[in-house]
Amino acid sequence: MKKLNIGLIGYGFMGRAHSNAFRRVSNFFDLEYEPVLRAACARSPEKVGAFAKRWGYETQETDWRKLIARKDIDLIDIACPNDMHKEIAIAAAKAGKMILCEKPLAMDGPEGLEMVKAVEKAGVPNMVWYNYRRIPAVTLAKELIEQGKLGRIFHYRAKFLQDWTISKDLPQGGAGLWRLDVKVAGSGVTGDLLAHCIDTALWLNGPMDKVNAMTETFIKERKHVLSGKVEKVGIDDACAFLARFKNGSLATFESTRYARGHKALYTFEINGEHASIFWDLHDLHRLQYFEHRDEGRLRGWRSIHVTDGDHPYMGKWWVPGLQIGYEHSFVHQVADFLDGVAKGKPASPTFRDALETQYVCDAVLKSAKQGKWERVKS
Amino acid sequence: MKKLNIGLIGYGFMGRAHSNAFRRVSNFFDLEYEPVLRAACARSPEKVGAFAKRWGYETQETDWRKLIARKDIDLIDIACPNDMHKEIAIAAAKAGKMILCEKPLAMDGPEGLEMVKAVEKAGVPNMVWYNYRRIPAVTLAKELIEQGKLGRIFHYRAKFLQDWTISKDLPQGGAGLWRLDVKVAGSGVTGDLLAHCIDTALWLNGPMDKVNAMTETFIKERKHVLSGKVEKVGIDDACAFLARFKNGSLATFESTRYARGHKALYTFEINGEHASIFWDLHDLHRLQYFEHRDEGRLRGWRSIHVTDGDHPYMGKWWVPGLQIGYEHSFVHQVADFLDGVAKGKPASPTFRDALETQYVCDAVLKSAKQGKWERVKS
Amino acid sequence: MKKLNIGLIGYGFMGRAHSNAFRRVSNFFDLEYEPVLRAACARSPEKVGAFAKRWGYETQETDWRKLIARKDIDLIDIACPNDMHKEIAIAAAKAGKMILCEKPLAMDGPEGLEMVKAVEKAGVPNMVWYNYRRIPAVTLAKELIEQGKLGRIFHYRAKFLQDWTISKDLPQGGAGLWRLDVKVAGSGVTGDLLAHCIDTALWLNGPMDKVNAMTETFIKERKHVLSGKVEKVGIDDACAFLARFKNGSLATFESTRYARGHKALYTFEINGEHASIFWDLHDLHRLQYFEHRDEGRLRGWRSIHVTDGDHPYMGKWWVPGLQIGYEHSFVHQVADFLDGVAKGKPASPTFRDALETQYVCDAVLKSAKQGKWERVKS
Amino acid sequence: MKKLNIGLIGYGFMGRAHSNAFRRVSNFFDLEYEPVLRAACARSPEKVGAFAKRWGYETQETDWRKLIARKDIDLIDIACPNDMHKEIAIAAAKAGKMILCEKPLAMDGPEGLEMVKAVEKAGVPNMVWYNYRRIPAVTLAKELIEQGKLGRIFHYRAKFLQDWTISKDLPQGGAGLWRLDVKVAGSGVTGDLLAHCIDTALWLNGPMDKVNAMTETFIKERKHVLSGKVEKVGIDDACAFLARFKNGSLATFESTRYARGHKALYTFEINGEHASIFWDLHDLHRLQYFEHRDEGRLRGWRSIHVTDGDHPYMGKWWVPGLQIGYEHSFVHQVADFLDGVAKGKPASPTFRDALETQYVCDAVLKSAKQGKWERVKS
Repeated sequence: MKKLNIGLIGYGFMGRAHSNAFRRVSNFFDLEYEPVLRAACARSPEKVGAFAKRWGYETQETDWRKLIARKDIDLIDIACPNDMHKEIAIAAAKAGKMILCEKPLAMDGPEGLEMVKAVEKAGVPNMVWYNYRRIPAVTLAKELIEQGKLGRIFHYRAKFLQDWTISKDLPQGGAGLWRLDVKVAGSGVTGDLLAHCIDTALWLNGPMDKVNAMTETFIKERKHVLSGKVEKVGIDDACAFLARFKNGSLATFESTRYARGHKALYTFEINGEHASIFWDLHDLHRLQYFEHRDEGRLRGWRSIHVTDGDHPYMGKWWVPGLQIGYEHSFVHQVADFLDGVAKGKPASPTFRDALETQYVCDAVLKSAKQGKWERVKS
Repeated sequence: MKKLNIGLIGYGFMGRAHSNAFRRVSNFFDLEYEPVLRAACARSPEKVGAFAKRWGYETQETDWRKLIARKDIDLIDIACPNDMHKEIAIAAAKAGKMILCEKPLAMDGPEGLEMVKAVEKAGVPNMVWYNYRRIPAVTLAKELIEQGKLGRIFHYRAKFLQDWTISKDLPQGGAGLWRLDVKVAGSGVTGDLLAHCIDTALWLNGPMDKVNAMTETFIKERKHVLSGKVEKVGIDDACAFLARFKNGSLATFESTRYARGHKALYTFEINGEHASIFWDLHDLHRLQYFEHRDEGRLRGWRSIHVTDGDHPYMGKWWVPGLQIGYEHSFVHQVADFLDGVAKGKPASPTFRDALETQYVCDAVLKSAKQGKWERVKS
Repeated sequence: MKKLNIGLIGYGFMGRAHSNAFRRVSNFFDLEYEPVLRAACARSPEKVGAFAKRWGYETQETDWRKLIARKDIDLIDIACPNDMHKEIAIAAAKAGKMILCEKPLAMDGPEGLEMVKAVEKAGVPNMVWYNYRRIPAVTLAKELIEQGKLGRIFHYRAKFLQDWTISKDLPQGGAGLWRLDVKVAGSGVTGDLLAHCIDTALWLNGPMDKVNAMTETFIKERKHVLSGKVEKVGIDDACAFLARFKNGSLATFESTRYARGHKALYTFEINGEHASIFWDLHDLHRLQYFEHRDEGRLRGWRSIHVTDGDHPYMGKWWVPGLQIGYEHSFVHQVADFLDGVAKGKPASPTFRDALETQYVCDAVLKSAKQGKWERVKS
Repeated sequence: MKKLNIGLIGYGFMGRAHSNAFRRVSNFFDLEYEPVLRAACARSPEKVGAFAKRWGYETQETDWRKLIARKDIDLIDIACPNDMHKEIAIAAAKAGKMILCEKPLAMDGPEGLEMVKAVEKAGVPNMVWYNYRRIPAVTLAKELIEQGKLGRIFHYRAKFLQDWTISKDLPQGGAGLWRLDVKVAGSGVTGDLLAHCIDTALWLNGPMDKVNAMTETFIKERKHVLSGKVEKVGIDDACAFLARFKNGSLATFESTRYARGHKALYTFEINGEHASIFWDLHDLHRLQYFEHRDEGRLRGWRSIHVTDGDHPYMGKWWVPGLQIGYEHSFVHQVADFLDGVAKGKPASPTFRDALETQYVCDAVLKSAKQGKWERVKS
């Protein structure tokens, strides 16, 4: 097995999820490449040291430029906040490193375009961590659509509902809370949550034509952790939009962090001429499927427990009926990426694929601001 | 339309459910006979008067023997407590009346056998109100089994769980509480709730061979409403039994009034070689169906919303997606009975059909008492 | 009990639902007034004759003007297609009749306003059949909101999804299909289905400020039943809109007849500061409720089986655990109307209440046409 | 961190599940001991070699006696078929090794007793892999019971339903199919599946008093993989039993491999005076909870998504709403075991705890054979 040396930047929630994926993939998947945790990188030597020790990184760095400069690093994994993605990615591309980048790709479309140009110019393998594509039930949905089971698509609807920012006392900024700080996050739920919904939608239902959005910031001011002062909240707490896809289907998208009772309820439903599908992150191991061609009196939504050996990825894990969890989607994504490297073909979503999502986000935010339909750049 | 004159005995929960069925059936079903609410009968003139007025009974009686003696009554409907069924039914049969009898048929098998002999000797149409057979989802289950969709049956399991007698302060006896008084009810959950489960099971899965039961009375003494004294509780609060059907399948049955959180949770599940079905009274308009012959990766339990025009009975009601309720099962049963009268063929369950359930109940109670397997009489 | 003589116009789906409600209400509710089915009216003497016979109407008419002119009629119930509502209602008001009108109130807001003026000038009791307010679970939702259980409302979302018009071969116009004929229906899903969603929303969440909609007609031409020719389809097959309520909450609404797998899936969800609720017409006897003030580790969506004696309306029906169905909402609405007549206070929604829904529908259709935000008239 | 050297025997399904747990525990839990994968052992050098390579075992053995003799091994993990448990465990105990043993502990109670005596005599830490205790939702159930939330327990019911042996063509014996070979497995569903149900039940509801069982072997003969001949099937395909616990509660247990539509549906429900709980392996991240002390009209089963930081074990994983899977229960069990080693207190279930489950299994099989109630040894 060939070694592929990883240099990870960031040690938060995503740093953990990616590290876990790198460590586990070879136990379950048969691949030509084996990821090696060569170096972890973050500004604080104490924090990166503790992280490196826990996860078995062989070395550590506090300056990402030095990490990129190291000859023993094959791949740079960007798992730090959004405002750093562009600079790091472009530098890594210039250094000829493979690049994995946490989503959203960039702060906005123009930034994303620069990144795409950089990786394409350098010709390095690249991928963005839109992990939900690799939940087996979601991958199964993709396969059903590609097989034509749904026929013409009439409707797409997606939501991503959370409830963790309802309290007025929650501050913004700093570790764990940078997602509330617009200068670091770029936007609120649009880039954080709707970006996931959009990525899946573009993958399953093709390109979007135009959008019409509204956003809201329910709590207008919050204390900033770094400045210690009460500051205006710049992010969108909630965002909903109407959309038309190029295939003629109509869509609704909605995300909020003010939906009491939902922790991370990402759901999507697709209604086709012959069949419909529904999926829900809170029960991610199930796919709901309605097949109109079933015998009339026996039609009903089927709750498919996606844990059989012939379901996507599931043959690698346990036995039928035993569910896997959230983190496995990252393992699958690493497996597909490594397989792509071995075969010389890109694993999706590449930076270019992810740029399309960025363009939709831009259109959504612009539409919300201007209060009118906005065509999606492409 | 021919008139069929009803004489109802009893004005409680079942008196209301039956009256409602008689009143509504002709609005929805096309039948040769139309039920006419000719007379209501109960001991208290005030109570039966108020009841007759509310439901539109033309006359009233306080002595059931007089009711039976009336020439203008075609059908006697027995909706009073269990200990009165036998005497009334035999008298009505002798008078040549058609008879509908609330379940359970009798206090025990020997009583039931006398009643069967009486109606068969008199040659009068007769039926017992095991209404759950006519819930459309349950009727659909029956049809699927008869079509052979399930193949060989391996397992049957049924439960009827309630929680309304947990309080020690609940008295026994008298109106509304006679179900706790063994002298009037004959038994506790066995005759009241398991009798429903058994009736459905015999109908769907054929005759039972033997049973092995346990019963429990959690609260040993309760004040009696009529005597005013604390008396020993003679009924079974809970009963569970193992069973073997003659078709080789294994079964479990359980009922209790001490299952916190369940109001009237009657469920059954049948596992066959090719398919399984599940039904639940708390969502009575749905049938869960698993079809192993579906394409492998797309197998899942289908939740069939049994509200289409081609589902049993449903073409008579509203439009697809709009559910009916509990009471409609009684309307369907009246419709089938009247249709049977017109065509000269009995509507099930007849007294003889219901006797089989009585025999199972007897075997269950005897097994529980003796602590061993008991063969079911047949 | 005082008699209240009903004259019904129309004999379709709604004619049946209303008749059933009139016939049943006195068996279950204790009211000063008892509805009497005095006359049914429709153009075809055969059809109205058969209908009158089935439902027990004492007389029949073929000209609604004659019906209105009759002295023995107290109340006119309008259950015919939308394009006739205005003319009949205004004539009935002038004749001093009480009026019940099937929803939507009118073809559009200006028509509705004329009707409101007519009934208010005449001072006659009036109500529109937005029946879903009286589903016990929905009424319970209203009570919870009024008690302040939810606190500040952040989000409202509603959908009404059907799938019955997907086939290209389905014609438009004529009996049963007039809902596809824009000249008779006024609009498609907006007036037929979204009107229900809007009525409930205004009732539960207060007035709407502005909307932003899109509509689509998937199948552009259909054969017309009456003309026999292929004609352009003028209705909206699908409609989705964003909305802002005056209380500051954000909303999404969507309706379609092209959502494979859904027969009549009307759902709404409300997210408040302290609690959230969700309801679904396909399981109308349940209310989902999330209470943030529950002990932290034990928080979860509660599935409330709304069948207890202390749940709205349920004390009048059966026993806990036994569900009622769709049609009961009409019974409850009649009960409340009759109670209002006895007490001299209007039962909601009155014509004026229903006019607000009409204004939202107008704004939705205008916004969809113009592709921009539209303020709701009030 | 201290190293704790593992020697694993077996490389099948459980060999993988245990190895995964050993490899992952230190990334997520803060423990004094770190497991080191020192040696894997199995008869076939090729198979154990491939397994060791995949999982990173440093060395390999083909003779378990040699493994036990190695000084560099601290802990023997027994993950081979049931008929080998006793001999290996006793030898390992004599060698002073810590022992983890896959469930069921032994072929029967007497074997299990010998094993208990051996480990207790040797004074070595020991544990049996009844992993379901460490599913967070199950652990939460345990905590609720210990806090007295349920009050007096009336009912316990558990099922473990599968459908993978329905085909007559499935052979018995050999790798992957030894569970169908009574000489290797000891029994069928009783030791394989019901043992899990019983372990959980004894943990949650205390000791059992007596049982009354029936078993069935639906397919009487199957080809044996090793002999190549059709041989009688000695295992129980299905087993159901009634039970009485010492706390006065009644119980039903059932397991089968002939329940079409269920892959690994382990469910349990407990009904107490004040509250009830329900859990289901097919949605293992949820606990259903009914609390009678909730406000009357708002009572309902709560679906608790057990993924919050204050839920058992969950603070170690991701963020609220993101579910973990089956395999994590093994990680938790290793974490608790290692913590116990550090603190010098046993982690449950010890061999002695697991012996109680063995005694129940023995009583169940004996009762089924003799057709009568059987008291559980203790």
